[in-house]
Amino acid sequence: MQEISVGIDIGGTNSAYGLVNKNGKIVFQDSMPTRGYAKVEDFVKALSLKINDAIKKAGDVKIIGIGIGAPNGNYYTGTIEYAPNLEWKGIIPLAKMFQESMGVPAVLTNDANAAAIGEMIYGGAKGMRDFIVITLGTGLGSGIVANGDVIYGFDGFAGEVGHTLVCTEGGRECGCGRNGCLEAYASATGIRRTVFELLGTTNHPSVFRDVTFNNLTAAMISEAALKGDKIAQVAFESTGRILGIKLADSVAYTTPKAIFLFGGLAKAGNLIFEPTIRHFEANLLNIYKNKIKILPSELNESNGAILGSAALVWKNINNE
Amino acid sequence: MQEISVGIDIGGTNSAYGLVNKNGKIVFQDSMPTRGYAKVEDFVKALSLKINDAIKKAGDVKIIGIGIGAPNGNYYTGTIEYAPNLEWKGIIPLAKMFQESMGVPAVLTNDANAAAIGEMIYGGAKGMRDFIVITLGTGLGSGIVANGDVIYGFDGFAGEVGHTLVCTEGGRECGCGRNGCLEAYASATGIRRTVFELLGTTNHPSVFRDVTFNNLTAAMISEAALKGDKIAQVAFESTGRILGIKLADSVAYTTPKAIFLFGGLAKAGNLIFEPTIRHFEANLLNIYKNKIKILPSELNESNGAILGSAALVWKNINNE
Repeated sequence: MQEISVGIDIGGTNSAYGLVNKNGKIVFQDSMPTRGYAKVEDFVKALSLKINDAIKKAGDVKIIGIGIGAPNGNYYTGTIEYAPNLEWKGIIPLAKMFQESMGVPAVLTNDANAAAIGEMIYGGAKGMRDFIVITLGTGLGSGIVANGDVIYGFDGFAGEVGHTLVCTEGGRECGCGRNGCLEAYASATGIRRTVFELLGTTNHPSVFRDVTFNNLTAAMISEAALKGDKIAQVAFESTGRILGIKLADSVAYTTPKAIFLFGGLAKAGNLIFEPTIRHFEANLLNIYKNKIKILPSELNESNGAILGSAALVWKNINNE
Repeated sequence: MQEISVGIDIGGTNSAYGLVNKNGKIVFQDSMPTRGYAKVEDFVKALSLKINDAIKKAGDVKIIGIGIGAPNGNYYTGTIEYAPNLEWKGIIPLAKMFQESMGVPAVLTNDANAAAIGEMIYGGAKGMRDFIVITLGTGLGSGIVANGDVIYGFDGFAGEVGHTLVCTEGGRECGCGRNGCLEAYASATGIRRTVFELLGTTNHPSVFRDVTFNNLTAAMISEAALKGDKIAQVAFESTGRILGIKLADSVAYTTPKAIFLFGGLAKAGNLIFEPTIRHFEANLLNIYKNKIKILPSELNESNGAILGSAALVWKNINNE
């Protein structure tokens, strides 16, 4: 009988789920809408039914636990707390609800911490005791591992590198209500903002002079940069500079052996890695220079979230 | 028989040492010059003799280990590596040398990590699993504890918050060769630099218009601020603002339950705490607001270094 962990990734629009074995093989995966369930109880019921169906089809498996990655997820309490992109308001005890619905232990954390655990169990951070995963999506998430464990902080909400400040005055508005946060610059949204700032501050010709803000995607910026669009190229240089400088700061905190970049903007490959690494090295304290790698995540975006969530279960078993 | 840990604090000029019991009582303490020993072997021999004398005088005690706090100390290797303020160059295996000289286990870390362990074992961080100690002396040192353990990073040199950047352009020269590091602003030296910058940029009358840079001390700035000197007051406001903003960043990394300030500049009391806490709260991400305390260290400066070093031994025994 094969031991299986269930990975669930709760997104604002859809939730992905899968059955994952200890080697990181996804034996089944699917997704269902997160929206449309006014009561979270109905969502848990619907998803539990789907997971039970999948388990039946999978045959000779033993479910050892459920791992959940969710926005604003708190590992200590197993709750989702005031997630702005979900319909369910307040504090939702999601881990307990799945535990009761499915009859196996459930553990929950935020999506970036799940990505870090996925990297540790299944990805490029195998065997590393100190590393950081940065997720470059709509925002910038971070999962920090030190001494072999995720840093959750005293209240379960540590690891918000996206909300460290790039500048203390005159910074961009951030969704958190403050100004100057890293994620307002270094994220899929941040680079779109940079393109639009450059359209205003420079006279470079650019394909983006005929595109609206709402229609612009990070993928379009990559494509244009590769074709020689000056605005797109400067936007990557600027984004990499800010990200590199702030990652150099992060080394002064926990001195990871590697920093993994995951998510939409990381898919731009060398366009983002080259300037990030260059400015990172230029800004590192001398004792850290040429010692720390910035690497692409070894999890791919389509299944990384499921693997990360499922890995939570194996990580918890290892810690016991 | 009383169990005793030997604490040694290696300074650029003098080295303090003491015999400390498990409750943090220093049963003996003294110091000797660090300078004047061209060969580190001679220093270890001289200090070992002094410690052995102290042990004899202390009577019925059992030495369980030696803890050493030293600049550029590496916990993993027990070595001092390229310490700019010491006469011994290169990599010095100091823990091993004391272990052989004294015949008991010796463990070494840098001074700020020793201060953090001292706070955890003997001071205000008792029972806390997540906290940060910031030492505000000539420079700014930091010891970061998460999940109950000091974060040493993959190579033993984590926790250099003093070398995170306040600004990415136009910052002050730092001793590390870069510009804009936090310790160039928030430290006993940093506030002296701020006073001199203000003497240049403002026309405020000030007692410091008759003082040279080399003669100015942080204690003089405290005294002047209390007497209403405008330059001194603005210097504290400016220092607290920069420190508060950067400590808000540090919460986004490890989310400590408390941040303890230790060392010369922390002795300024409310002059430094009030603006630091005000700007800290104003710059915290909303989920962290009003949850994290900035507190004075409960170790005093004269014996804190010895207690911190001695506490290393107890901490290591607890971890085994």
